[in-house]
Amino acid sequence: MGAVVPEPLSRLIEALGQLPGVGPRTAERYAYYLLRADQLKSTKLADSLDQLHAQVTYCPKTFALMEIGHEVSPLYSDPKRDKKLVAVVADPFDIIALEKTNGFLGTYHVLGGLVSPIDGIGPEQLHIKELVKRIDEDKVEEVILATNASVEGESTALLITQQLGDKAVKITRLARGLPIGVDLEYADQITLTHALEGRQIF
Amino acid sequence: MGAVVPEPLSRLIEALGQLPGVGPRTAERYAYYLLRADQLKSTKLADSLDQLHAQVTYCPKTFALMEIGHEVSPLYSDPKRDKKLVAVVADPFDIIALEKTNGFLGTYHVLGGLVSPIDGIGPEQLHIKELVKRIDEDKVEEVILATNASVEGESTALLITQQLGDKAVKITRLARGLPIGVDLEYADQITLTHALEGRQIF
Repeated sequence: MGAVVPEPLSRLIEALGQLPGVGPRTAERYAYYLLRADQLKSTKLADSLDQLHAQVTYCPKTFALMEIGHEVSPLYSDPKRDKKLVAVVADPFDIIALEKTNGFLGTYHVLGGLVSPIDGIGPEQLHIKELVKRIDEDKVEEVILATNASVEGESTALLITQQLGDKAVKITRLARGLPIGVDLEYADQITLTHALEGRQIF
Repeated sequence: MGAVVPEPLSRLIEALGQLPGVGPRTAERYAYYLLRADQLKSTKLADSLDQLHAQVTYCPKTFALMEIGHEVSPLYSDPKRDKKLVAVVADPFDIIALEKTNGFLGTYHVLGGLVSPIDGIGPEQLHIKELVKRIDEDKVEEVILATNASVEGESTALLITQQLGDKAVKITRLARGLPIGVDLEYADQITLTHALEGRQIF
């Protein structure tokens, strides 16, 4: 293929093809785009890739992402944030979604995944021990289990509830119900069951 | 957002979001994948990006992609390839598709796009002049117009035919007809019209 696709280009196509969900055709499209575009675009992307692992790390307390140089995530050290209220999420990017609501002023705890026997992720790979430690250290009063409404999310939530069994802490989870803008007739059965169970006084 | 997404990560997300068809969510997914993956993956991608513009260029004769250091594309200089037979394609990656057939031993000429008034691409931006020059220089006997079966592909083919009008060269184009494996009832009208017009003795 060396004659058809020059070696440096096929190396780039191969590297881009490693990204999740990117097949060879998409990788080709990305590479050719970058080749035609101004060199600055490739340089910027290369620089930010070089800096990624060198400058981004996990907060040792909350396991949220933070810039190297901080001792803990600004989302934890911020004095306006209530350390007694902890939202437990699976991935760092779940924090973005919750922060966008502008309605949560507690702190976060990132598990680093969800229990999933198929993917070989057991409870010991998640940051549950560290959560248990935080309960005592920060005198946490409420833990909000903000995991996905999936089988993995539910079983991880259940597992955490068990591990926090002997702590005097309130455990809540995100409400399940109808998402805004969805017609009742299109809602699935399980969502409707949850919506009925969790009905509130109007 | 600096607190929620560390600056180096959001820079990477922004850079990835420049790729064609990549929205913010996909860029986030790519970035987070690279962060979780071994650092080697990011380094490899960054290196290949750095080398892209430095090591890949266009062949001055055929405008195919080639490594810097070659005088012309190996697809042109290869003595086994017939310089008197030229396949005209829109983009360098179209060559890959044709090479995969293993059935073409002529040379290529990359136009660098197709005439498209909407995108502001006129005939003067395409390498048509250079094609005309090659006809004389290489004593080309046949030009195969291998452009897309689209409006842009057809009008570009027509334009080239006009510009080659005074040359004693045979101009052919790729056959239009039923693609292999497609049911007659699902073929569109225009394809069927072409298939009928181009019918061959069995």
